[in-house]
Amino acid sequence: MTYTPATQDQLLAIRVNAGIEELATTEKFAAAEPDMVEAIVEGVGQFAAGEFAPLNRIGDLEGAKLENGVVRLPDGFDSAYEAYVEQGWNAIASPAEFGGQGLPFTLACNVLENLGTANMAFNLLPMLSVGAIEALEHHGSGELQQKYLPKLVSGEWSGTMNLTEPQAGSDVGALRATAVPIEDGEHAGKYRIKGQKIYITWGEHELSKNIIHLVLARLPDAPEGSRGISLFVVPKYHVDAEGNPGARNDVRCVSLEHKLGINASPTCVMSYGDNDECIGELVGAPHRGLMAMFTMMNNARINVGNQGVQIGERATQQALDYAKERVQSARAGSPDRNPVSIIEHPDVRRMLLRMKALTEGARALLYYTAGQVDRGTLGDDAARARGEVLTPLIKAWGTDIGIEVASLGIQVHGGMGFVEETGAAQHWRDSRIAPIYEGTNGIQAADLVTRKLGMDDGQALVSLTEDIARDCAEEPALFALAGDCAAVAKWMREEASLDDRLAGSVAFTTMLSVAVAAWQLVRQLRAVEAGSAPALAKTKPASVRFFLDRIVPEAAGLRAAATAGSEDLYAIPTEALLG
Amino acid sequence: MTYTPATQDQLLAIRVNAGIEELATTEKFAAAEPDMVEAIVEGVGQFAAGEFAPLNRIGDLEGAKLENGVVRLPDGFDSAYEAYVEQGWNAIASPAEFGGQGLPFTLACNVLENLGTANMAFNLLPMLSVGAIEALEHHGSGELQQKYLPKLVSGEWSGTMNLTEPQAGSDVGALRATAVPIEDGEHAGKYRIKGQKIYITWGEHELSKNIIHLVLARLPDAPEGSRGISLFVVPKYHVDAEGNPGARNDVRCVSLEHKLGINASPTCVMSYGDNDECIGELVGAPHRGLMAMFTMMNNARINVGNQGVQIGERATQQALDYAKERVQSARAGSPDRNPVSIIEHPDVRRMLLRMKALTEGARALLYYTAGQVDRGTLGDDAARARGEVLTPLIKAWGTDIGIEVASLGIQVHGGMGFVEETGAAQHWRDSRIAPIYEGTNGIQAADLVTRKLGMDDGQALVSLTEDIARDCAEEPALFALAGDCAAVAKWMREEASLDDRLAGSVAFTTMLSVAVAAWQLVRQLRAVEAGSAPALAKTKPASVRFFLDRIVPEAAGLRAAATAGSEDLYAIPTEALLG
Repeated sequence: MTYTPATQDQLLAIRVNAGIEELATTEKFAAAEPDMVEAIVEGVGQFAAGEFAPLNRIGDLEGAKLENGVVRLPDGFDSAYEAYVEQGWNAIASPAEFGGQGLPFTLACNVLENLGTANMAFNLLPMLSVGAIEALEHHGSGELQQKYLPKLVSGEWSGTMNLTEPQAGSDVGALRATAVPIEDGEHAGKYRIKGQKIYITWGEHELSKNIIHLVLARLPDAPEGSRGISLFVVPKYHVDAEGNPGARNDVRCVSLEHKLGINASPTCVMSYGDNDECIGELVGAPHRGLMAMFTMMNNARINVGNQGVQIGERATQQALDYAKERVQSARAGSPDRNPVSIIEHPDVRRMLLRMKALTEGARALLYYTAGQVDRGTLGDDAARARGEVLTPLIKAWGTDIGIEVASLGIQVHGGMGFVEETGAAQHWRDSRIAPIYEGTNGIQAADLVTRKLGMDDGQALVSLTEDIARDCAEEPALFALAGDCAAVAKWMREEASLDDRLAGSVAFTTMLSVAVAAWQLVRQLRAVEAGSAPALAKTKPASVRFFLDRIVPEAAGLRAAATAGSEDLYAIPTEALLG
Repeated sequence: MTYTPATQDQLLAIRVNAGIEELATTEKFAAAEPDMVEAIVEGVGQFAAGEFAPLNRIGDLEGAKLENGVVRLPDGFDSAYEAYVEQGWNAIASPAEFGGQGLPFTLACNVLENLGTANMAFNLLPMLSVGAIEALEHHGSGELQQKYLPKLVSGEWSGTMNLTEPQAGSDVGALRATAVPIEDGEHAGKYRIKGQKIYITWGEHELSKNIIHLVLARLPDAPEGSRGISLFVVPKYHVDAEGNPGARNDVRCVSLEHKLGINASPTCVMSYGDNDECIGELVGAPHRGLMAMFTMMNNARINVGNQGVQIGERATQQALDYAKERVQSARAGSPDRNPVSIIEHPDVRRMLLRMKALTEGARALLYYTAGQVDRGTLGDDAARARGEVLTPLIKAWGTDIGIEVASLGIQVHGGMGFVEETGAAQHWRDSRIAPIYEGTNGIQAADLVTRKLGMDDGQALVSLTEDIARDCAEEPALFALAGDCAAVAKWMREEASLDDRLAGSVAFTTMLSVAVAAWQLVRQLRAVEAGSAPALAKTKPASVRFFLDRIVPEAAGLRAAATAGSEDLYAIPTEALLG
């Protein structure tokens, strides 16, 4: 149940797939030189294993509880969070002017990866704070930034994102929360916020000294739909001019969801303005809230994809440990009849290698994506476009493989896997949320086959499949898959209707994700063969070959589904379907 | 949360895939004429929906509880079980001489399908009793049969299977429970049983008036390993010469497992002979217990595969209901901006159709298998051999698709799917056990590529792929998949090492399962097109096309994994794998 940080594989991915050394040649990211990178990766890994990991099981068992309006976490969460803030892990990628270290997003990904592998539910607290920081950093006024950012960056305060309402899930534009300008008095220039929000992750708790809610709501003169939504910052405790928290704002958690997993993460129903005294401040321009939210959601999607890597790593380690310890049956066909560790049986070994290959593939894709985002920040438009194409891939495929790997982890345990005490089941339950939140995987796939497919006149996507084909001509299955992806994309651009594209979107997303992950693994393998990661010299070739020889051809089998069109989906009248 | 029995699709599968009308032409199964079949399918469907389904959620929430050695179920389970016994559903396929109806296994499958769709955890009680009945029917002496079968057949008493011990899971031969012959006194000729058994489904409860445990144990002179295991019948209450239960036997439930799902099914740790007073009787010959158990396990494996169909059906119905009710977003590209039921969105519809196609495909495979088993009972050796080839397919692939469909069911619900109150998550949690028990899916796959691959000099399997290719030449993707399966089988027989076969076993199992399911769906489609099931005329063509055009080509993508061999699995030394 303990875990060892995957430091070596992370460092390889950060070097090869994110290209950290190149990033460190720029002025902005000059601090990210090799010693610093190693210190961060090793340091946060040890911190996560030591402080967050031991709370994973108790967090699942006891969960977050709402008592008289106060959300309680099991013992240990408060001191672990305190240590997290003290050691400065929250501030890695935030701007130096607000106390951050200004390091690349790539390294913030690594902090999240380590914390989330240790404790996925707990890690949602820093993860959501990042979103609030980015929203204020990119869209808040100087005054708002001065008021909120320093303590958000340090982690003394935490942040939340408030989009969803019962009738407004994937369709954020349908939300009804309101914001009315305050004309005079103490709060003149601010807004009175009213409404109920659901699925608010870490919406209420006592670990941080204040909670800064970013809330979408409508101004009185707002047009209908998604163009009439504004973004507000609503602190749990009002903040005075010196940045000190004071009286309680009129916002409260009215209930917690009873969920399938991530039980230590309080998922709150939040009520704003029950007494008409909830005060918020506008972030950015009126009616432009959704755009502000989307800027920020891009990285949030990568961070959710990261959770697939996290669960994959944790589940793989646990399954490997069990498979080594559990002795059962002799090897088939062995002359002696001595029982062996189940890790020696071919199908168990296949499951373990599949878990390893999928996790490493998703990690390679994650850091490749993060590196492109960092280049985008530096002004490289091609990299920014590539990062945008990759974002739905890591979010959707990364979280899909998280579930698959956790499920294989249960299977390796046999009957023990179905017993909760073992802990394998928790990973699987926890993993199931990731394909849903921050835009369902169906929405990611839709994004890929609409907006991303058309970006730069199609070149953003075409150049990706071309790069893979050019770089991997010596790997026949991958070369073929890249060709399949290019062919599907061409069909989608030139022949398919919008419905046809959407009907094939998820299959295409998987194909393209596997192709990119395989490519990035090939790049890792070359680096390992060139001697750059001696610790991985024995394992990397096998996991990469497993990915190329088994997982890549499997993805090619999705081409028919990707191009099957939408006609058959509508061949049954809806009423008949309901039968 | 309620459900409508899939009566029409079940009747179609029973007619087309099991061939019930042909079975009814035989003397043994003459009672299975059309009116009787319809009465059973409709009757048990209504019974299950009315009595078992309403207990599904409370069974999950409250679960089975052990209190002072007594296992308690939530209110309602006792009266529902009583009604089940009264209506005679337990006796469908049991021999008439013990009060059964002597109907085909196919119809027993249908009873289980309906009960399990309503309540998977509850249905394990009748399902395990079937195993005890079969063990006694095929291996018990006349005396034992007279003593135990009438009340097991009626359902007044229930039965359990006791194989597993902590050190003996998949490797049953490693078990250590003992049985010592009693020389004289009241119990002369019987045996003193001692040992602990784990994972005993419905091992203790109060719903039936007695529990008949079938227990594997070793006689004092037993050889080591699986050839030294004998089968014993151990009643919870001793049974007198008139068949009345009397004093309590020395067997008790010492704890219940805390599981991921099927919470209403008590999974017991059973202790036999704590006071050296546990009395059992030998079933069959000494040291031949494992063979007796395996005879019985064949049908049990089909019954577990059936659970995949059950969860698939229930999850699909719930997702369809939700997708109809939930209104969210306008159709992409629609000129108006009116939100629609999410069932109208292409990717939601794709998920729903995939759920439907997989469930119907597994059902077609289930009843095709059941029909072959019934023909085997009638003395048709080719059918018996085919039934044996099909058994690992329905067990492994049936339970795999159960999980996939339940997972898609959660995804269709979006955020609501992750909230336990919705009920979608329960199906997914419940589904996860089925690939594990009654022989893990890896063991099913191993059975396919070892014993089944070699049956009748390979012809048992070859004839199956040939039949598909011959019957489906006009379906190019399916024809190709049948060819792929034949090629993999040939490679496995002629070129592959044992390790190579095992390394590709799961991929091959999926390929072959999809091919057979697709074939059986094609046969259904022809029947529907010929006018034999007007109620399905609008839906069946679309679900079959979905299966043929999308799911079949996907399975073909597994060929590389099936034939990749085992070398790369062992390329990493075990120690390096453990990192």
